[in-house]
Amino acid sequence: DDGFTVAGRRFTSRLIVGTGKYASFEQTRDAIAASGAEIVTVAVRRVNISDPDQPMLMDYVDPKAVTYLPNTAGCFTADDALRTLRLAREAGGWDLVKLEVLGDKKTLYPDMRETLKAARTLLDEGFQVMVYTSDDPILCKELEDMGCAAIMPLGAPIGSGLGLQNKVNIRLIVEQSRVPVLVDAGVGTASDAAVAMELGCDGVLMNTAIAEARDPVRMARAMKLAVEAGRDAYLAGRMKTKRYADPSSPLGGLI
Amino acid sequence: DDGFTVAGRRFTSRLIVGTGKYASFEQTRDAIAASGAEIVTVAVRRVNISDPDQPMLMDYVDPKAVTYLPNTAGCFTADDALRTLRLAREAGGWDLVKLEVLGDKKTLYPDMRETLKAARTLLDEGFQVMVYTSDDPILCKELEDMGCAAIMPLGAPIGSGLGLQNKVNIRLIVEQSRVPVLVDAGVGTASDAAVAMELGCDGVLMNTAIAEARDPVRMARAMKLAVEAGRDAYLAGRMKTKRYADPSSPLGGLI
Amino acid sequence: DDGFTVAGRRFTSRLIVGTGKYASFEQTRDAIAASGAEIVTVAVRRVNISDPDQPMLMDYVDPKAVTYLPNTAGCFTADDALRTLRLAREAGGWDLVKLEVLGDKKTLYPDMRETLKAARTLLDEGFQVMVYTSDDPILCKELEDMGCAAIMPLGAPIGSGLGLQNKVNIRLIVEQSRVPVLVDAGVGTASDAAVAMELGCDGVLMNTAIAEARDPVRMARAMKLAVEAGRDAYLAGRMKTKRYADPSSPLGGLI
Amino acid sequence: DDGFTVAGRRFTSRLIVGTGKYASFEQTRDAIAASGAEIVTVAVRRVNISDPDQPMLMDYVDPKAVTYLPNTAGCFTADDALRTLRLAREAGGWDLVKLEVLGDKKTLYPDMRETLKAARTLLDEGFQVMVYTSDDPILCKELEDMGCAAIMPLGAPIGSGLGLQNKVNIRLIVEQSRVPVLVDAGVGTASDAAVAMELGCDGVLMNTAIAEARDPVRMARAMKLAVEAGRDAYLAGRMKTKRYADPSSPLGGLI
Repeated sequence: DDGFTVAGRRFTSRLIVGTGKYASFEQTRDAIAASGAEIVTVAVRRVNISDPDQPMLMDYVDPKAVTYLPNTAGCFTADDALRTLRLAREAGGWDLVKLEVLGDKKTLYPDMRETLKAARTLLDEGFQVMVYTSDDPILCKELEDMGCAAIMPLGAPIGSGLGLQNKVNIRLIVEQSRVPVLVDAGVGTASDAAVAMELGCDGVLMNTAIAEARDPVRMARAMKLAVEAGRDAYLAGRMKTKRYADPSSPLGGLI
Repeated sequence: DDGFTVAGRRFTSRLIVGTGKYASFEQTRDAIAASGAEIVTVAVRRVNISDPDQPMLMDYVDPKAVTYLPNTAGCFTADDALRTLRLAREAGGWDLVKLEVLGDKKTLYPDMRETLKAARTLLDEGFQVMVYTSDDPILCKELEDMGCAAIMPLGAPIGSGLGLQNKVNIRLIVEQSRVPVLVDAGVGTASDAAVAMELGCDGVLMNTAIAEARDPVRMARAMKLAVEAGRDAYLAGRMKTKRYADPSSPLGGLI
Repeated sequence: DDGFTVAGRRFTSRLIVGTGKYASFEQTRDAIAASGAEIVTVAVRRVNISDPDQPMLMDYVDPKAVTYLPNTAGCFTADDALRTLRLAREAGGWDLVKLEVLGDKKTLYPDMRETLKAARTLLDEGFQVMVYTSDDPILCKELEDMGCAAIMPLGAPIGSGLGLQNKVNIRLIVEQSRVPVLVDAGVGTASDAAVAMELGCDGVLMNTAIAEARDPVRMARAMKLAVEAGRDAYLAGRMKTKRYADPSSPLGGLI
Repeated sequence: DDGFTVAGRRFTSRLIVGTGKYASFEQTRDAIAASGAEIVTVAVRRVNISDPDQPMLMDYVDPKAVTYLPNTAGCFTADDALRTLRLAREAGGWDLVKLEVLGDKKTLYPDMRETLKAARTLLDEGFQVMVYTSDDPILCKELEDMGCAAIMPLGAPIGSGLGLQNKVNIRLIVEQSRVPVLVDAGVGTASDAAVAMELGCDGVLMNTAIAEARDPVRMARAMKLAVEAGRDAYLAGRMKTKRYADPSSPLGGLI
């Protein structure tokens, strides 16, 4: 068994997927099934989870079969995020949540001051907080020390598909953390997800890379396989690379 | 069915693996099983395929269950390669072969003049030739026009584990070829294999990345998954990347 | 004239260099001369600037010829940093300072909470603050809005020589800032400095890349040229790259 | 003096520039002056070097002040290239020439078989041959052994501006060669040229990166500085990079 544990719950799949940006709830359902995800994020402010007169995500994705992880997508202040998650807890009883507080609409980069503030309050109120964060190892440590259940640094801006920009920071975060580290945002294609796992991350969260592929269901399957591949490669211990530059040259050890 | 056809034979797995460098024939067998490979390369000059008094690969890897692809590893001239493959045909009846003629012992880079010469003779003699080659699109086209059954450009030097160095050339070769293109050599870890497949290659061949991993069997499984992941991602059509540099800046479109 | 202005002072050279890690004050002096730097950072807690009985940096690098920029290297709290810079102001009258508050000894990554706190106090006390920061665009904006005179994101960890890890963030910071942006830390060789400038940064600060080169004086000259080259290339507006993947393939626009 | 010698002639500048694609001869002249180049390539089939009734390059770029290096741009066979260079020798007395035989119009990748054939004939006829080549170390060695005066591997396709794709091959070629190695084609901006020089190349040749910049003259100056910067950085011996991954992890030594 190579699962991972977050907030005391055990999961086998290391791929978490979002539920936004799909063409239909049918496609959402099929992509989630293909991804093998056991956790799906739900943007409380965007997805209908309470009005039974409208089509509801629950009718397509069974909350008893997969864990719903309410998130605060679209929140730009700690207060907004708190309000959103309190409502989610009242409405659905969720207390395992994903916190994200964004800094601006252009980059969707996290606002770390507001994130730290909101995380502290949520933890005080008994939530279990998985937290979207910059790849700043010091702030990630602070979030862990505070009691967050998982650290979720971005690989690249949300929705960019640019792949992991800073492997050094992601690896530093992995080495220092005792709670799960999941790369959240930035994955564009399967190899990006594999790279995250090869760095030793516990999992990957994505939405756009699947939802905006030409064939989301097939891409969901690709991502499932890529996360498993990257995990296995990490555990298998990769071969050493061979360097070709004459060790006595200024490039010895670099190429 | 998403298999591929080479020399009239249909295969489901797009991962081809070597049989050298393992600790034992048992490990070779287990790694091949985990990889799901339907084709394995056999270095005719190195692996015992004819002396029944010594342990034989065939006792562990059933040539009726997987396709043996004799190769010319260790050959540095066309003549050596020809001699080796003629012997293989006599000994085992193999006429689907992998040709590699190496240029020097340090880099194991292909000698393209000798490769072209040997390929021509082998084709004249009725062999079906899968050919290890540099990533030179013009020479790859020449090999295809000559009648080679598969084009196998290196991603990086044999045994280096450095990953694909020149994606531009690999993609040019994929776009121009009507026979299968397989990246052969250079893969170091799972994401490297996924990258090759995401470029549209038909398959990947590797040996060291599996055999020299700390846990070869687990790495073999990682590679199986990575090749499938990369293939699915290619077919799924990845999302567009989002660029952030102001289009009016000198960097518009680049970042 | 293509100089830049920080805190009301005009400089021609866009390369700022440190004064630590050299074999001798003679070498420090020669490297600074070769670099063409008009600003040098001085680690107030490490470099002797006050005990006339010991060799003093001032005897080799004339503070009337180059601008001394006191920094807080080695400070891990806002309080330490404040104390250090208050002493520097008393001792040398410096009020243009470089603030850096480090998060831990292993990575030397900035502690952004302490950095923000220290920056606010320094600005209140009338200092002009050039600030070492993570490459978090939101926090960089906060530092600018607070009144900092220059934003100095790291390219990679201090002393790593790994080159710019996250070009996307650096470019986002450049586009949003109206005060100078200087990449501080991470440069390993000349092309790294050129890359920073090509992204539109106003300058680059480095120490280890010069001091730990085999020939620091020659490397200082290399860096001078590289910064000028990168600046000119940015202003000249680079050619568009040509993409080779068939636009109708899943890779159109990517390769 | 850090010049380099090719075919017995000594040059100080390590930047060679083309003379095509400019808006006017005036711009050509100014860009060459800014580049500091002492050698310029001239496409014998495209540039007017013989009809005195039309504007002539010689009227703007003095062949006594800079070395004209006739090239075979636009030739797709050995015969075409030979014919072109024989004409050039008759017309201008040039026997130091740059040979390029292209494989197709889409990629402008060299046709190595035709290149080898033409090189042999040119050498037999007493030309001194600088040769545009793929980055295949074995064929580069063959060209050197044959007597070519300089080896000029492409960094990326002509006119692509994609930067060096395969640093491993370029470095292998540098380490094995006793004649000058110059990267020819692929440079897009200043840092690309610096990277080539940091690998130990003797020089860089470019045309499009300068001619198609928004401000060609400023880009020419950028390239001059970048080549000098990269050369100095190579000679200075860069600092070692610091790796952060725990050496006991599967990533030890890689990140």
